[in-house]
Amino acid sequence: MKSSSKNRYWLGFDLGGTKMMATVFDRDFNIVAYRRKKTKDGKGSRGVLGRIVETVEEALQAAHLDHRQLSAIGIGCPGWLDLDRGVVLNAPNLGLRNVPLKKELTKDFGCPVFMVNDVDAGTYGEYHFGAGKGVRCLLGVFPGTGIGGGLVYEGKLFRGRTGSCMEIGHIHMQPKGRLCGCGRRGCLETVASRLAIAAEAGAAAYRGEAPHLLELAGTDVAGIRSGALASAIKAGDHVVEEIVAHSARDLGIAIGSVVNLLAPDMVVLGGGLVEAMPGLYVQQVRASIKKQAMRPYTKSLKVVVAKLGDDAVVMGAAALAAEYKRNPRD
Amino acid sequence: MKSSSKNRYWLGFDLGGTKMMATVFDRDFNIVAYRRKKTKDGKGSRGVLGRIVETVEEALQAAHLDHRQLSAIGIGCPGWLDLDRGVVLNAPNLGLRNVPLKKELTKDFGCPVFMVNDVDAGTYGEYHFGAGKGVRCLLGVFPGTGIGGGLVYEGKLFRGRTGSCMEIGHIHMQPKGRLCGCGRRGCLETVASRLAIAAEAGAAAYRGEAPHLLELAGTDVAGIRSGALASAIKAGDHVVEEIVAHSARDLGIAIGSVVNLLAPDMVVLGGGLVEAMPGLYVQQVRASIKKQAMRPYTKSLKVVVAKLGDDAVVMGAAALAAEYKRNPRD
Repeated sequence: MKSSSKNRYWLGFDLGGTKMMATVFDRDFNIVAYRRKKTKDGKGSRGVLGRIVETVEEALQAAHLDHRQLSAIGIGCPGWLDLDRGVVLNAPNLGLRNVPLKKELTKDFGCPVFMVNDVDAGTYGEYHFGAGKGVRCLLGVFPGTGIGGGLVYEGKLFRGRTGSCMEIGHIHMQPKGRLCGCGRRGCLETVASRLAIAAEAGAAAYRGEAPHLLELAGTDVAGIRSGALASAIKAGDHVVEEIVAHSARDLGIAIGSVVNLLAPDMVVLGGGLVEAMPGLYVQQVRASIKKQAMRPYTKSLKVVVAKLGDDAVVMGAAALAAEYKRNPRD
Repeated sequence: MKSSSKNRYWLGFDLGGTKMMATVFDRDFNIVAYRRKKTKDGKGSRGVLGRIVETVEEALQAAHLDHRQLSAIGIGCPGWLDLDRGVVLNAPNLGLRNVPLKKELTKDFGCPVFMVNDVDAGTYGEYHFGAGKGVRCLLGVFPGTGIGGGLVYEGKLFRGRTGSCMEIGHIHMQPKGRLCGCGRRGCLETVASRLAIAAEAGAAAYRGEAPHLLELAGTDVAGIRSGALASAIKAGDHVVEEIVAHSARDLGIAIGSVVNLLAPDMVVLGGGLVEAMPGLYVQQVRASIKKQAMRPYTKSLKVVVAKLGDDAVVMGAAALAAEYKRNPRD
């Protein structure tokens, strides 16, 4: 009995910019327990690493499990990753550089650890358990502070040679556009991310054109979150509605270009802006894709809202860990 | 002896807008014989179909083969295709609509027939026999009258549900750009195809700014081919050089966006503009990709010129026919 109950659980980890989450799943991917923590504690790489280990330990305790009962850990991370070696090369939002996360976690928990890009994990989660179950070619797009993309093609994550790809936020949109975090100008993120919307809406609030937003969130781009934008629109800030709708149309134009390239069967939209404004925002994106992409690709294309919310990354990371354990990559 | 020599040959077919070509290959894909014909004879679908059959028959005769010695036919076609059913849904340049090519050829030659998009065939040809041999993720880009793209990912053509995809010519580039053949505005084809360059250079020639081009090719966009553009530049038409260089930079920007999505290991460039101006044109495209795409994707990216020229499509189509015969798609 004891030996058959061993190695039966999966652990999914979501390493986010503001919070981290560890979730324990049984063999059928039912949630057994989870724990969250804030990501940053001002102690740099070592601090983050320590909190990751603590969060996993606490999730295991909450599930009344010993780490020897873990079959594998899947960890979804942002930033530039070396997936095969399991190293976070550079994750500026987390202050991590050259952190051998896989090695550290393997040492601490004694089971295989698989690293995956967080947006890829979210997309794979939606493919496996959510809105895009079993879809042949599934494009995930997650507009938030930045704009991430992921692709599951014929059951497998599409990826670069040693890392992730599908950087839809860095599709070129405007020849003389605004400065992007990547150092170039006019990327999609400069016109359609939550940060781009916050900057434009913050200026409108400063000019007195968005009184509700000014009252709700002020003019600091850091504080103008998706929820505040949604509330300001509901309260009657038409200029905020126009800014959000315009950025949604731009997102649709970029997704339309990707549809012309990859001919996905479904686009699943998730992230903060989508969750806060599933009506207005998603309608605009959908209409813009249909207008931009070519008819043979759009006639059977579904554009839907993600189903798993905050669980997408942990579920996808755990499912990928299970997949990679069964079919190791070379 | 007779039975072992049966079913040993492959036939690749390239159905182009101006000419068609059938090439017979032995089991090791050495060329045994080939025949070309003009595509159009003014007799519509039936006329084109008849000439396809004739061209195949003549290539077989030239190879001293009976059609019973054919293992399979692979046919590369432009336009909208239903690959599984083997139907040309719509190929405006060829005047073909709803032509069940696979069924007709299977009937006439009694062997399996596989239909494939022509640009996909060219990309697969370069992957199998040419500049991109064995590359994990190979993006083929063929700027000509339009701009076609193809992707071979982990040994397989990337494709849509029932047809081809990778329509790089219809990536959105300019919010208020010129009218595209697809009905939208500002697609890559409107700024970087041979037709777009011909239109701009033709206007410059009309204004007296490109005297060599005027003498070589006149002002008719139909007559301003890649070779004429190259000759005019060589003869000293600086404005033509500027137009071509600018369009090459735009192509590089679009390919840069695709690199940010797909992280290919190699981009292989082919088609009329590349063949006519492998120096100037390719340098500009390469520099523009490196500037536009993100560093982790460009540092090991190779941007190279296609090697197979006019043989790419027939070779790729034949190799795909062999591949699909071995591993039938569901």
